[in-house]
Amino acid sequence: MTLKVYCDRMSQPSRAILIFCKMNGIDFEEITIEILKGQQHTPEYKAINPMCQVPTIVDGDFTLFESHAILIYLSCKYPGVASHWYPSDLIERAKVHSVLDWHHANLRRGSVGVIVNNVIFPLNGLPSNAQAAEEAEKTLEKALTVLETYWLKDGPFLVGRSQPSIADLNLVSEVMELQLLPAEHLDRILSPYKKVLKWVEDTKNATAPYFEEYHGVLFKARDDMRELLAKKSGKNE
Amino acid sequence: MTLKVYCDRMSQPSRAILIFCKMNGIDFEEITIEILKGQQHTPEYKAINPMCQVPTIVDGDFTLFESHAILIYLSCKYPGVASHWYPSDLIERAKVHSVLDWHHANLRRGSVGVIVNNVIFPLNGLPSNAQAAEEAEKTLEKALTVLETYWLKDGPFLVGRSQPSIADLNLVSEVMELQLLPAEHLDRILSPYKKVLKWVEDTKNATAPYFEEYHGVLFKARDDMRELLAKKSGKNE
Repeated sequence: MTLKVYCDRMSQPSRAILIFCKMNGIDFEEITIEILKGQQHTPEYKAINPMCQVPTIVDGDFTLFESHAILIYLSCKYPGVASHWYPSDLIERAKVHSVLDWHHANLRRGSVGVIVNNVIFPLNGLPSNAQAAEEAEKTLEKALTVLETYWLKDGPFLVGRSQPSIADLNLVSEVMELQLLPAEHLDRILSPYKKVLKWVEDTKNATAPYFEEYHGVLFKARDDMRELLAKKSGKNE
Repeated sequence: MTLKVYCDRMSQPSRAILIFCKMNGIDFEEITIEILKGQQHTPEYKAINPMCQVPTIVDGDFTLFESHAILIYLSCKYPGVASHWYPSDLIERAKVHSVLDWHHANLRRGSVGVIVNNVIFPLNGLPSNAQAAEEAEKTLEKALTVLETYWLKDGPFLVGRSQPSIADLNLVSEVMELQLLPAEHLDRILSPYKKVLKWVEDTKNATAPYFEEYHGVLFKARDDMRELLAKKSGKNE
């Protein structure tokens, strides 16, 4: 039976899993659950993932969610997955786990907070919480500083690796979500972090052509959103 | 060389690692970094863990932080660790990863937010943010509901297991941190969750006598804090 991937290319961890499968020749069926349309709340999807989130995989009888857990499972399940994605060496693997765990409460928390307060709320006509927006941006900037000065200090990829691991794919996909911000805002946030910018490019190149392909929906949304936000603020950009 | 564990028994993930080592006969040196005294910010500790957090382990030349990553590393490093802590079966292991990943942005986020706003801030004479406190409590209650109705639905331990895994140890240690709340507040939050309460007891019993031993500092702090908070609010409880 073909692996089913329930996902939305607008979701950063969904993209990581889709790109991972393509890069490793894993045959899968992509089933789109459109978050912005609320499709994650249908009874059918809730029966698959009661957390009402994407991504979820269904592999025969086995259902799994949480993107880090999925990437580890796929790396171990399919013998064709190149070893750099999830190293078998105990210490190298532990380092990958460490940065994946760090991600949850730092980069992801900051990034999601910034996007929700600066893009999702304004687009839906909801009031933005200035304090929450400021705190999210602080969390994000702190996380980007740690990426720049610690996680990327020893090599082109995270934790000093010469080839990307599942952590690079997942964290770069998170950074890419910031593309939804207005251009000046994005530039203000990211431009101080030269190693981070290079790492994004290196990961993009290491996962060509799938990186661009699976980010296409995000880039289209970015362009549409920027146009909408410009209209809402009465400006023509 | 003996494994070094830099930790604070007041920290929930520190306790999980200490109990895990004792349960599995792993020889270690416990080095206390007192968070409330700011010892995590000394240059000496920052050189070990630039995130200035506990726990951290140093195993020979290898330094590792993030408690989930540490528990996985120790499970794989020491052949004497019983297999129920970190199952080798691909699907069982994936389930343990899934609940560990879920923990970060749900139970941990809610629990830490509730403790910070209801205990740490008042004790330090800092103003509590009512909205943040309310949001943290909502996050915590949602997480406890998911524990009760989903993660504990199939067995006494998480993800339907008959014996505890590293996820049980880590998540129960998180729930135990709520002991720092005033008694009525704690009871109001936890009492609706009967399976959660039983799971805490089951995990406590499965890890006796170390569970009580390593929670001793927390229980003492709870009693001291309740006394202090009662004095601050001018009440005698």
